[in-house]
Amino acid sequence: MKTSNLVSTMVLSAIILGVSSTTIAVDLDSEDPLPSWNEGSTKAAILNFVSNTTNQSHPDYVEPEERIATFDNDGTLWCEYPDYVQSLFMFDRVRDMAPEHPEWNSTEPFRSIISGERRASANFSINESLQIYTATSTNLTSDEYMELARDWLNTTRHPRFGLPYTRCVYKPMLELLSYLQTEGVKVYIVTGGDEDFVRTFSDEVYGIPPEQVIGSAFRLQFVENNSSVSIVKLPQILVVDDGQEKAKEIVQNIGQRPIFAYGNSDGDIPMLQFATSDGRHGLGLLNHHDDSVREYAYDEGSAIGRLDSGLEMAGEWGWHVVSMKNDWKEIF
Amino acid sequence: MKTSNLVSTMVLSAIILGVSSTTIAVDLDSEDPLPSWNEGSTKAAILNFVSNTTNQSHPDYVEPEERIATFDNDGTLWCEYPDYVQSLFMFDRVRDMAPEHPEWNSTEPFRSIISGERRASANFSINESLQIYTATSTNLTSDEYMELARDWLNTTRHPRFGLPYTRCVYKPMLELLSYLQTEGVKVYIVTGGDEDFVRTFSDEVYGIPPEQVIGSAFRLQFVENNSSVSIVKLPQILVVDDGQEKAKEIVQNIGQRPIFAYGNSDGDIPMLQFATSDGRHGLGLLNHHDDSVREYAYDEGSAIGRLDSGLEMAGEWGWHVVSMKNDWKEIF
Repeated sequence: MKTSNLVSTMVLSAIILGVSSTTIAVDLDSEDPLPSWNEGSTKAAILNFVSNTTNQSHPDYVEPEERIATFDNDGTLWCEYPDYVQSLFMFDRVRDMAPEHPEWNSTEPFRSIISGERRASANFSINESLQIYTATSTNLTSDEYMELARDWLNTTRHPRFGLPYTRCVYKPMLELLSYLQTEGVKVYIVTGGDEDFVRTFSDEVYGIPPEQVIGSAFRLQFVENNSSVSIVKLPQILVVDDGQEKAKEIVQNIGQRPIFAYGNSDGDIPMLQFATSDGRHGLGLLNHHDDSVREYAYDEGSAIGRLDSGLEMAGEWGWHVVSMKNDWKEIF
Repeated sequence: MKTSNLVSTMVLSAIILGVSSTTIAVDLDSEDPLPSWNEGSTKAAILNFVSNTTNQSHPDYVEPEERIATFDNDGTLWCEYPDYVQSLFMFDRVRDMAPEHPEWNSTEPFRSIISGERRASANFSINESLQIYTATSTNLTSDEYMELARDWLNTTRHPRFGLPYTRCVYKPMLELLSYLQTEGVKVYIVTGGDEDFVRTFSDEVYGIPPEQVIGSAFRLQFVENNSSVSIVKLPQILVVDDGQEKAKEIVQNIGQRPIFAYGNSDGDIPMLQFATSDGRHGLGLLNHHDDSVREYAYDEGSAIGRLDSGLEMAGEWGWHVVSMKNDWKEIF
């Protein structure tokens, strides 16, 4: 719909409904934007932060074009336990691709994926994980890769919750994404996962368009073939978007320092440091996975989503540790 | 302003003005969005393209979230003649930095910049240009670099037009940027220039926020110093965003194939090929600098903005060659 038509439709609706402009504004304002969050210091900090940064007469006011928020994905927006979703996708890809790669039956790390000896990413070294990532995600275009990812996401389910992974997303986080966007904040996902993998579902699930997803990526090749041009993912890793790379990729891709950063593991610390260290009262938050009943309690000393340093540093840096057990009314 | 308030203000304004919704829509629709463009096949192609891609009942309709347009900067949006603006900035930086670098008095390419022997980027090899780019643009943060660029842009003028470079922007192109954005197209600048240099003025001059500027860039370093974190530009080039790199950077940064691409030199060809080769009826355009009276006629066989291959390929690829002399009523 064109803007002119949209405006006229809104005007017309208001006239037909016979409501005054004041009524509309008050109705929208009085809703709790974070109904799945329990009252407490964390929720209050978020509401205050948004209220102050959007209030022109407040000293912490931030111009709309500078309202940038960055969110990690795994363990922050969706469930990453008992294993990273993308790892499970890659393991299935290895099994699917195995017939074309007879050499994998005698080559690690592929052999033990095919045989079923090693089933979790925690069983592989970082180098092995990158080898698996590269073998399963390259020599195809982004579109081809995303189609594979989409098909896989449509046909697999979380082993405990029985839901598609794209529904194992945290309801309080969806409310927060929506709230920030309503208040003029531009929200980015900054993920250690492959950026095309997350782009597959970011718009549909989170309301975040693919161009606002920053993640791990491969070098690309420009391929011209009979007036058809495509860009192919090469088997050379360009960036593993974790730790300090997250802050660097934010500068490279966004060119602005975020005012809000939200993660859940030690790999998100540099991103939070960057967002909260320039005296602009940026807000930093970390999900603490401490709810063994409704989800999992796993992030201390864990191979997945370890938050040991984050819990230690949060006090000094003024970050909010969000207890998923106590701060959230619902998880999914 | 919050959305709720914005809506209520619009409703209120309409009620006070006493205009009907139909009147508003018609008034906005009847305006020519490209008044500085002469009537002709190019203008018609742009208007048709936008009309079709935004019309849900047309076969070329494109969902709003897939409406991505990419524009080159130098020679496409602003004047690049007689030399690239950023090159002039770099030459001034060399002269400003010279006192701290006595060794430059006997080292090329710096010696001949300081002595005034070589005054134009055409006098330097590509390797020399990259050396100058690196020496003048690194070992500082993006913010520091952008402050230097902003100061320089505020105090220098185009030698012929006597205007700040940020006012040597093409009026027909400003209209086009605004028109596309009004129609829900997300517009990116994809420049061979340093992305921080263009981010300095992109929002103010073009209405394009810094995060929608993709350009040449250096490797970065995460620096932590007493609870303060900054990201420093290292003297190692990460990407020279020209030629095929433009198409690859679009995939890396946006993750979608543009439906619209606009350039002015052979370095923009891969970007146009990428936007127009997937059967989605993408529109490709090239500014042809053929107006020696109002601007310059220079792009054939030139060291700056050479368009020889573009002019040759345009017919076969269906790109529109925009004659700045004939298609534009005004230049600036």
